[in-house]
Amino acid sequence: MTKFTVLILGSASASPTLNRNPTSQLINISEQYYLVDCGEGTQLRLRANKIKFQRINHVFISHLHGDHYFGLMGLLQSMHLLGRTTALNLYGPPELIKVIEIQLEVAKSTLSYPLIFHATNTEQSEVLYEDEKVVISTIVLKHKIPCTGFLFKEKEKPRKINIEAINKYSIPKYALNRIKKGEDFETKTGEIIRNSLLTFNSLPSFSYAFCSDTSYNEEIIDTIKDVNLLYHEATFTEEHLERAIKTRHSTAREAATIALKSNVNQLIIGHFSNRYTNLDVLLEEAKSIFENTHLAEDNKIFDVSKTQ
Amino acid sequence: MTKFTVLILGSASASPTLNRNPTSQLINISEQYYLVDCGEGTQLRLRANKIKFQRINHVFISHLHGDHYFGLMGLLQSMHLLGRTTALNLYGPPELIKVIEIQLEVAKSTLSYPLIFHATNTEQSEVLYEDEKVVISTIVLKHKIPCTGFLFKEKEKPRKINIEAINKYSIPKYALNRIKKGEDFETKTGEIIRNSLLTFNSLPSFSYAFCSDTSYNEEIIDTIKDVNLLYHEATFTEEHLERAIKTRHSTAREAATIALKSNVNQLIIGHFSNRYTNLDVLLEEAKSIFENTHLAEDNKIFDVSKTQ
Repeated sequence: MTKFTVLILGSASASPTLNRNPTSQLINISEQYYLVDCGEGTQLRLRANKIKFQRINHVFISHLHGDHYFGLMGLLQSMHLLGRTTALNLYGPPELIKVIEIQLEVAKSTLSYPLIFHATNTEQSEVLYEDEKVVISTIVLKHKIPCTGFLFKEKEKPRKINIEAINKYSIPKYALNRIKKGEDFETKTGEIIRNSLLTFNSLPSFSYAFCSDTSYNEEIIDTIKDVNLLYHEATFTEEHLERAIKTRHSTAREAATIALKSNVNQLIIGHFSNRYTNLDVLLEEAKSIFENTHLAEDNKIFDVSKTQ
Repeated sequence: MTKFTVLILGSASASPTLNRNPTSQLINISEQYYLVDCGEGTQLRLRANKIKFQRINHVFISHLHGDHYFGLMGLLQSMHLLGRTTALNLYGPPELIKVIEIQLEVAKSTLSYPLIFHATNTEQSEVLYEDEKVVISTIVLKHKIPCTGFLFKEKEKPRKINIEAINKYSIPKYALNRIKKGEDFETKTGEIIRNSLLTFNSLPSFSYAFCSDTSYNEEIIDTIKDVNLLYHEATFTEEHLERAIKTRHSTAREAATIALKSNVNQLIIGHFSNRYTNLDVLLEEAKSIFENTHLAEDNKIFDVSKTQ
């Protein structure tokens, strides 16, 4: 089984508490690290979880409210002080790079590594990154300022070789890559050996959608439909619906409704207002709509491949 | 006895560790709070120490290296979210306000309270703040970028009224304020009653100097001479003197030499490079020059009035 996990580094909304840092998550897909949002204190949360900063090559920032990025400069700085030379890819709203540049400028400082900035289009979903294993794209959210979520989708995995069959039919090594992709094999004598005889079904591919911060917005359903795991902010309960509408946030019931309508396997809610000292009220509200709901808790790991 | 304490909120240099935040200190003089530097995570350190943010009305930033101010935006933001309306005075290098303004601008955000910015003159010592109890001025430091320390000096305190004598000589109440200032009293009949008959000596006044970050610099001695408590950075030991010179920092021996030559009562060293897991080597090096040296440790309180 390949790895696909989400480590919660911060689950608070704008005002952190002693137990809850502002938003940040580390996504691990086959030992590639992707950092999503970077609230104040993220570098210490990473350190407490024994995550090596230098293994992070891609950082995604949803929007430019401070609780989603005030830890970024400190992390960039620490990567520099640790002697990083590998390029770091940073994805976020266009103005983010200005904010970074002015802070380097006033410190008369440069970074020891290339910082490659990719401005996100906050109006329309787009693919930000793609390799042989994963596609990462944006989810357009509705918030007070331009904001995107991020969708992490594993690509279809190669079929698993049936070694016994490979030996039986004396299949040459050079042909294995194409067979893993599902192709049949043609022998020198022109005989066709069906792929289904040579391989087992591939492992399933998993997907994770990160949606923070946003008003209730059914337009995202098409994009996140059928994902295994959905993180959706739930800043308030229905009791504070008016406040949710005013601040362009969601209630726990709304987050669960999106999960239900999107046919996801599992929902994580987070970005809790610090008015809730006991979060059960948020969890119960969400569960009444969508049973398989869990609370984001700092330092907790969710396994995307086990979301049934 | 009036209160004059220094609470260490962060004692690390640029790379924080799990036990040491980057630089920040809270100075309490007669229950007025002054925050000095504000590295990432300062707001949580304040919270952990049960310090009410809203009681801080003056924030001093020494220079624009991130480990001295990356926690400032988060603190300003939390003060806003908590509904602050009282003005906040911020003192720091001129470019600091640009860095704040751009971060408010990209968040399309304003603060709920007036932020009054006072640009520091990083070339020449100046008084930044003064009231009936305290004078706060800058100490010009020598670092890679413009940097000032801060000197907190209690003013001479009023003389203590000798109540028995006041009754004996039937001194009217309206005269007490002038008597506390040391004036004699003239009765209606023209008789002069000496102040020394009416008062006791005033309580002593204390002083604290904060010096971070800086090369060894004897030019500061005149400014900080005879302070009760000196905080002086000691990023390295003498073994790394070359590195100290290159990065414009001080060694523990250098910090202690400044303390000795400045005739201070007590020295705190801090801003330790994270290469030192055991800080005794820094402490011993300083103590060999200046015995009354202490290590800055996160969450530790130093009492300036007990520095003998």
